[in-house]
Amino acid sequence: MEKLTLFKVGGKIVENQTSLELFLQDFARIEGHKVLVHGGGRTATMLAERLGVESKMVNGRRTTDERMLKVVTMVYAGLVNKNVVAKLQALGQNALGLTGADLNYMRSEKRPVGEVDYGFVGDVKEVKADILAGLISQGVVPILAPITHDKKGNLLNTNADTIAGEASKGLAKYFDVTLVFCFEKKGVLSDENDDDSVIPEISRESFKEYVSSGVINGGMIPKLENAYEAIDAGVKEVIITRAGDIFSGGGTRVR
Amino acid sequence: MEKLTLFKVGGKIVENQTSLELFLQDFARIEGHKVLVHGGGRTATMLAERLGVESKMVNGRRTTDERMLKVVTMVYAGLVNKNVVAKLQALGQNALGLTGADLNYMRSEKRPVGEVDYGFVGDVKEVKADILAGLISQGVVPILAPITHDKKGNLLNTNADTIAGEASKGLAKYFDVTLVFCFEKKGVLSDENDDDSVIPEISRESFKEYVSSGVINGGMIPKLENAYEAIDAGVKEVIITRAGDIFSGGGTRVR
Repeated sequence: MEKLTLFKVGGKIVENQTSLELFLQDFARIEGHKVLVHGGGRTATMLAERLGVESKMVNGRRTTDERMLKVVTMVYAGLVNKNVVAKLQALGQNALGLTGADLNYMRSEKRPVGEVDYGFVGDVKEVKADILAGLISQGVVPILAPITHDKKGNLLNTNADTIAGEASKGLAKYFDVTLVFCFEKKGVLSDENDDDSVIPEISRESFKEYVSSGVINGGMIPKLENAYEAIDAGVKEVIITRAGDIFSGGGTRVR
Repeated sequence: MEKLTLFKVGGKIVENQTSLELFLQDFARIEGHKVLVHGGGRTATMLAERLGVESKMVNGRRTTDERMLKVVTMVYAGLVNKNVVAKLQALGQNALGLTGADLNYMRSEKRPVGEVDYGFVGDVKEVKADILAGLISQGVVPILAPITHDKKGNLLNTNADTIAGEASKGLAKYFDVTLVFCFEKKGVLSDENDDDSVIPEISRESFKEYVSSGVINGGMIPKLENAYEAIDAGVKEVIITRAGDIFSGGGTRVR
């Protein structure tokens, strides 16, 4: 099978023009098939604030009322996605921006109201990886915004790490997939106050230990859970690293 | 050649949920290949206002500073485009939202500063109709937002009528194209105060007469100029009609 690298870049990298351009230059130089999943939460929060829409976060996840859904659709699918696409086209990459609604490639269902009502948040139910694989085989570089749809006419806000995990799992049937989570740290840290304390490799066993000892906590837990789900579904390797380090061989390897 | 209908719908139709849904139901029922080009100017103006970004119009065209470019990218490529795509997917149409940057299907250049500085407004220079035609032949329904790019990393605001005209001209090499401009009136009116005074057919000769007598004026002039350019480039028929009347055979036929 041919090699494919799926990168997920977080908001801090995408929303700063300098770090975005540096990252995209690196991304363009990566050989083989590629997919990019981006966030944009900070810009969404800022825009929401200016429009008087309250941002509510529960367990690190944004709750999404009707007005917030409009904000994230504008920011993720419009501003961030199309700027990334235009910049990659300038770098000779045949980028195509997609939400889950486009070509119906990712369908979700509105999360049921439990203890928390997350609002218009979608849990992924179906990934048409054949559609993505077909585009990729033609040299297209899909740029995935963290918005899905329910195939009933509604857009839904969906966590970008989840999109990256689900897309990787689907694509693992067609390609040798490496999933790379890029963020602002050098990797998963054993000491959050020491940026150089990167854990080079995490196994399932050590993951459990790190969680119970509190070394790994917060938003890193679902990220690693996504990573293991991806590996279970055939993804070859998951790397958590700093955006600027994708050629260094550094970061944390999840095994 | 197979038949293709390219619809351009203006802001008033797209931005009202009821009229949008009625239009999309009609659109979904049209047989043969289809393309939809949409506007969204009213929503952009409203959002700009709430963000304190001034909307300047010169000769019926929006001038676009850096902040306005962000607003129109969010509204056209994000909010409006993705809502249309999601609603069409619910109607069984395999919609795919595109800006000119996506797959580099439409390249423009920033309009030179003359008497007026239009800002980040793009004049179309290159349409890769083969890309659109390839998607359409696979059953995809392209939904075109009025945003293009310069292939140098910059998005540019581009008039939706122009996008419709340019896409039609390019697609005329591959399909028997009918270009339909849908707006809120029943057609081109001979008396702007009488909604039933539709001119059923306009020829080049009568167009000149209508313009010199002032019957046709304002934004209708570039719309008709676009129509004749499209016909010169091989588009079979141009119809200007009300969104709700696309099955009635009414409206104005441009010959």
